[in-house]
Amino acid sequence: MIRIGIAGYGNIGRGVEAAVTNAPDMEIAAVFTRRDPSSVTTVTGAKVLSYDTIASMTDDIDVIIICGGSATDLPWMTPELAASFNVIDSFDNHANIPEHFANVDKAARSGGNVGIISCGWDPGYFSLARIYAEAAIPDGAAYTFWGRGVSQGHSDAIRRIEGVADARQYTVPVEAALNRVRSGEHPEFTARDMHLRECYVVAEEGADKAAIEQAIKTMPNYFEPYDTTVEFISAEEMAEKHSGLPHGGSVIRSGNTGLRGEFGNTVEFSLDLDSNPYFTGSILAAAARAAYRLSCEGQSGAKTLFDVPPAYLSAKSREELLAHML
Amino acid sequence: MIRIGIAGYGNIGRGVEAAVTNAPDMEIAAVFTRRDPSSVTTVTGAKVLSYDTIASMTDDIDVIIICGGSATDLPWMTPELAASFNVIDSFDNHANIPEHFANVDKAARSGGNVGIISCGWDPGYFSLARIYAEAAIPDGAAYTFWGRGVSQGHSDAIRRIEGVADARQYTVPVEAALNRVRSGEHPEFTARDMHLRECYVVAEEGADKAAIEQAIKTMPNYFEPYDTTVEFISAEEMAEKHSGLPHGGSVIRSGNTGLRGEFGNTVEFSLDLDSNPYFTGSILAAAARAAYRLSCEGQSGAKTLFDVPPAYLSAKSREELLAHML
Repeated sequence: MIRIGIAGYGNIGRGVEAAVTNAPDMEIAAVFTRRDPSSVTTVTGAKVLSYDTIASMTDDIDVIIICGGSATDLPWMTPELAASFNVIDSFDNHANIPEHFANVDKAARSGGNVGIISCGWDPGYFSLARIYAEAAIPDGAAYTFWGRGVSQGHSDAIRRIEGVADARQYTVPVEAALNRVRSGEHPEFTARDMHLRECYVVAEEGADKAAIEQAIKTMPNYFEPYDTTVEFISAEEMAEKHSGLPHGGSVIRSGNTGLRGEFGNTVEFSLDLDSNPYFTGSILAAAARAAYRLSCEGQSGAKTLFDVPPAYLSAKSREELLAHML
Repeated sequence: MIRIGIAGYGNIGRGVEAAVTNAPDMEIAAVFTRRDPSSVTTVTGAKVLSYDTIASMTDDIDVIIICGGSATDLPWMTPELAASFNVIDSFDNHANIPEHFANVDKAARSGGNVGIISCGWDPGYFSLARIYAEAAIPDGAAYTFWGRGVSQGHSDAIRRIEGVADARQYTVPVEAALNRVRSGEHPEFTARDMHLRECYVVAEEGADKAAIEQAIKTMPNYFEPYDTTVEFISAEEMAEKHSGLPHGGSVIRSGNTGLRGEFGNTVEFSLDLDSNPYFTGSILAAAARAAYRLSCEGQSGAKTLFDVPPAYLSAKSREELLAHML
C-alpha cells in the first residue's frame, strides 16, 4: 500500500481522503493541519496530526498531497515539504507556474524526491488535452471554456463587498462562442465574448442592493470585463439551490493536417462535474500513485502531468491496460 | 533533425509524410516500398527506396514509422524492423495487441531499440482518453462511439460482393445512445444499440441490386449485428460526395467520486476529422519524436502511448510548455 499524507483538510483534502480511501493500492497515513488537531474530525476517521509534527513522519509516508491554496499556502508549503517527501499539489496560478516549478524542483532534487505540481483539472487534465491536441494538430488553435460552474475566487470577491451576507458566482461559457470554435473557426475573442458571470447574492438586512450590484459589475478583473448578471436571493434559496460546487468546461482545438493544411480537424475534451473538489482530489490521488512509482525508479525533481507516463496514474496492471484499455 | 523512415506508402504513409515535412524538428530520410521504387512518386519528392535495402540504412535513420496494415503487414514488419531501428506503428487489432506487444518487445530489446505500437486515434488517443478518465473516476464506465466516418474494412467487405463496382460504408453513432451515456447512464448496449451502418453502393451494369442489399445486410459480424441502410448511387455521385475519408467519434466515461459515490462526473473526448489517415499520420509522427527521445535516454523495448510522457510528443520546449500549455 502507498502511504499517503494529506496536508490541509478543506474541500480538496476531503476529496483526496475519499479518493485514497476508495483506491485499492493506497491508504491514508495521516491528515496534517495547522489548526488545533483536536478541532478537526475526518470523514473516514483518519488520524489528524499537527502540521508541526510532519517532519518526523518521513519513515511513515510515501507521498504527501498538499491541499492548500495557490495564493498563500502552496508557494512555500510545496518546496518546504518536497525537501523531505514526495509531494503533489494542485497549484493553479498559471502565471506563476514557471517560478513555482523551479522552487519545487530545487527542493525536490536536494531531497531526492519527486514533486508533481498543478495536478487538478486546469491546470492538469485540461493541460493534457491541450498538449495532446497540439501534438496531433500543430497547425491550429486551442480554446478553453470553463463552466457552467462555481468560481470560488469570484464568489469570495463578492462576499467582501459591504452589505453582502453570502454569494455564489457561476462562470458560464457563451454558447455562441463555443459553437464558433466547435465549427473550426479561430476567432480572436475578448474575455466578454467567451464567458458570462452569473451572481447570486444574499444581501444583509437593509443593505443597498443597487450599490452592491454596481460594486460587483464594476469590479476590475473579476467582473468588469464580462457581461455579469446579479440576482438577489434569500439565504434559504442559497442553501437549497447553490450549496454544491459543480464545475466543468471544454478544451477545444481545431486546425489542419495535410501537406498544405487541406484537412480540418476538431478535438474536444470536456468535463461535467457535480463536485469540483472531489474530482480534483481524485486526480491528486492518481498523481500520488505516479509520484511513488517515479520515485521508486530513482527519479527526482519537479514534474507536471506532462512528464508522467499515463500508465503510472492507473491502479491497473500493464496486462490489464494492454488487454482492456488500449 | 530527427531522421524518419517511412515504411509503406499508402494513405497513412502520405499522412506521415505531410506531418513530418511540416514538423520543425524532423525530416524524411526515405520512403521504403515493397513495390518497384520507380513506380512510386512521393508527394514531397522524398526519395523512394526498395524495402529490401532498409537493413543497410541503420546509420541514416533515427525512427521508422511503419505504415502497413494490421492484418498481414504489421505482425511481422514491426518486430522485424524493431530489431534494428526505433519503430512506430498503428497496429489496431485490439484482440491481438498483447501478442503483438510481446513480439515487438522481444525484438526491440534485442536490438536496444524503442518500439511504440498502436499509435493512431483508436487505439491511441482514444486509449489515452480511456486511461486518464479511469484514473480520475475509477468507479464508472466508459463507452466508445465511432463515427460518423468511413470504415475502410466495411467498405472493402461490400466491394467483395458479386455485382458491386464500388462501395463506401459510414459508421454512425446512434444519437439516443450517445445522449443516454452523456447524461451519466451506464446502459448495457448491444452493437445495434450504439452504431448504425450506412452503405453507398455503385452496382455493376445489370447486377441484382436486391441480392446485393440482402448480401450486405446479412453479412455476419460486419453488418448482421447492426441496423444497416443500403443506397445505390452512380459512380459520379460516389466520386463527388464520398471520395474523402472522414472519421471521428467520442470516448465518454461517467461515474462517481466521493466516499460513497455522492458526486456524478462525465468526461468526454471527441474527434471530428476530415481525414482519418492524415490525423493518424500526424499522431505517428509525434510518436516518432517520443521514441527518439526515449531511445536517447537509453530506454528500449515495446511501449504504447500509455508509457510515453506527453511532453515527449510535443515539439515545444519545457519552458514553452510550462508557460503556455500547462
